[in-house]
Amino acid sequence: MKKHEIPTPALVVDLAAMQRNIERMAAYYATGPCKLRPHFKAHKTPEIARRQLAAGSCTGLTCATIGEAEVVAREGLTGDILIANEVLGAGKADRVARLCAVADIKVAVDSDAGLDDIARAAAAAGVEISVLIDVGVGLPRCGIAPGGPAMALARRVAATAGVRLCGLMGYEGHVVGIEGRDERAARAATAMERLLSTARMLREAGLPCPIVSGGGTGTYDITGRMEGITEVQAGSYVLMDTAYARLGLPFELAFSVLGTVLSRPRPEQCAADNGHKACSQDHGNPSVKGIEGASVLFLSDEHATIALPPDCDLGPGDGIELWPSHIDPTINLHDMLYAVEGDDVVGVWPIAARGYPEQREAVGAEARAL
Amino acid sequence: MKKHEIPTPALVVDLAAMQRNIERMAAYYATGPCKLRPHFKAHKTPEIARRQLAAGSCTGLTCATIGEAEVVAREGLTGDILIANEVLGAGKADRVARLCAVADIKVAVDSDAGLDDIARAAAAAGVEISVLIDVGVGLPRCGIAPGGPAMALARRVAATAGVRLCGLMGYEGHVVGIEGRDERAARAATAMERLLSTARMLREAGLPCPIVSGGGTGTYDITGRMEGITEVQAGSYVLMDTAYARLGLPFELAFSVLGTVLSRPRPEQCAADNGHKACSQDHGNPSVKGIEGASVLFLSDEHATIALPPDCDLGPGDGIELWPSHIDPTINLHDMLYAVEGDDVVGVWPIAARGYPEQREAVGAEARAL
Repeated sequence: MKKHEIPTPALVVDLAAMQRNIERMAAYYATGPCKLRPHFKAHKTPEIARRQLAAGSCTGLTCATIGEAEVVAREGLTGDILIANEVLGAGKADRVARLCAVADIKVAVDSDAGLDDIARAAAAAGVEISVLIDVGVGLPRCGIAPGGPAMALARRVAATAGVRLCGLMGYEGHVVGIEGRDERAARAATAMERLLSTARMLREAGLPCPIVSGGGTGTYDITGRMEGITEVQAGSYVLMDTAYARLGLPFELAFSVLGTVLSRPRPEQCAADNGHKACSQDHGNPSVKGIEGASVLFLSDEHATIALPPDCDLGPGDGIELWPSHIDPTINLHDMLYAVEGDDVVGVWPIAARGYPEQREAVGAEARAL
Repeated sequence: MKKHEIPTPALVVDLAAMQRNIERMAAYYATGPCKLRPHFKAHKTPEIARRQLAAGSCTGLTCATIGEAEVVAREGLTGDILIANEVLGAGKADRVARLCAVADIKVAVDSDAGLDDIARAAAAAGVEISVLIDVGVGLPRCGIAPGGPAMALARRVAATAGVRLCGLMGYEGHVVGIEGRDERAARAATAMERLLSTARMLREAGLPCPIVSGGGTGTYDITGRMEGITEVQAGSYVLMDTAYARLGLPFELAFSVLGTVLSRPRPEQCAADNGHKACSQDHGNPSVKGIEGASVLFLSDEHATIALPPDCDLGPGDGIELWPSHIDPTINLHDMLYAVEGDDVVGVWPIAARGYPEQREAVGAEARAL
């Protein structure tokens, strides 16, 4: 199969560029005490995770949802899974408990209610669930306040049957995208000191804290070099996007959204079939790959309206590629990735954890049960 | 199954409200020469389309992609399908030709290249494909210029073997969302006069023009009452969203994105699990349903960070519902809809045409063929 035979819109991975990204990151973490825990949420694709793990320097995988962790476990990718997120809601803690039979699952907890639910599910299943306290380090989202509040919750975890305290996590998501490296480094240091100081408090109190987890692609060489951080949860580096490309990291843009020009009603623009149902825009419009002077004017559900330079001879039926501004939600719109080398399609990879895999399994069973 | 037992995030349809929306729209089109052609792209859900068609006043269904049309045909929803979009790209025209065996398929054409590809596929399959000329009416996207250029293309269609000229379409997407009804009506009239004047030119030249298709939810009672418009392609009315709700239309918000509160680290806010992988934000942040004074601060991939009033006692584990700003891309993120009546789940409906159904079918076959 050749690239021009791919039905559009579709996600295309530059296999050689992706492999270089994987190897560069693995080489970076080959030295030093800190390891990499690649974030599966970025691509949700078992074949990519297999390559990340095969390159070495990894301590397991990170997931954002139980559905992702279930796919990781089912595919046998690794036995060491961190769900770097709270797991509240109907059936969630019980699904975590079931996964404990096949993998070492660690989950984040930042509230008494969350702890109680995990402990209940562990007791019901007769298992022990590993827990990291999720500490707020500045991103206004989840995470208990560092210091005293986090310590109090850690003491409760340590005293609760069915759960095992394994340390702390904190995500400096408010700084990973800062373009200037000096400012990014300074603000990451401030953020992660909240986590590290809490880790010291735990150890001084005799509480276990083998894991201190944080970081992302934008801080892989900042947070990843702080003394006391044991693992970094980077995800985007493997395929990259234009938002992260602005940071000057040593990772290449390795995927694009292939589309077909549908219409060129005026010389100065065209409409292609890779709209925002195919390419997310939450970090801004995508960029046009390989056409000097072309830019996306706006995305609609099924169309990208693109400004073209006057000498561009692109017309209806021609291919056009967009570089997304944000990898995670773009991949989440598709069911498969096409891996290419030049013009040859060399792999077709299911995005097995796209969306909510449990919905696809449940739809038949739940409909029958009604 | 009860609503609080639904695994989150999930899409929840208020069945009674949806049914009222369907019946109100059908009643509007029960009189007058113009009919409704509900847009399947809005929900991609066969069960909803069945209810729209059962309510009457419909001339068939509208689709935006071939993948949607293939699902409509396979499910036997209707034999009259308009793909209101150009169908260029690898395999597209040939798939349209194959669908002709089971349904009356009409496609939009706005270029010579598009016409040539459709005619080639029709000849190869030995079928005749129905064509509407897509006329640009002001939205800067697809559509050939009205008047002379559209006439010239219509003459070519009429003279080409394998295709049948069935009329015109034009989408006034640049005006359907204008809040003030007077301005919306005035600008819709200007836009659609470009389509209607071209239709008159076709008829004066003796060319067939039985179909003049356009419109959307925001202009259902404007475009839908213009003399010469034969059908309106409204989609969002069936479930609605907050962007359309601002227009004061007689349709109710009938669906929401159910989430679970994961964390409430500070009294003034919480984080829930219905982020932008569960709820689109291309038309702005969603709204919080049922909590006076609450508002979405920002969406991340897997989290909604929500400002709460101080007296709100919502905590980790509690349900929270968001009203999306845009129905189409929100539904496209999920594989199923839960239909509820009060607290009872009364239906679980597959979103059969979510994303690119052909990818799900192809992934196995193409991987084996490599």
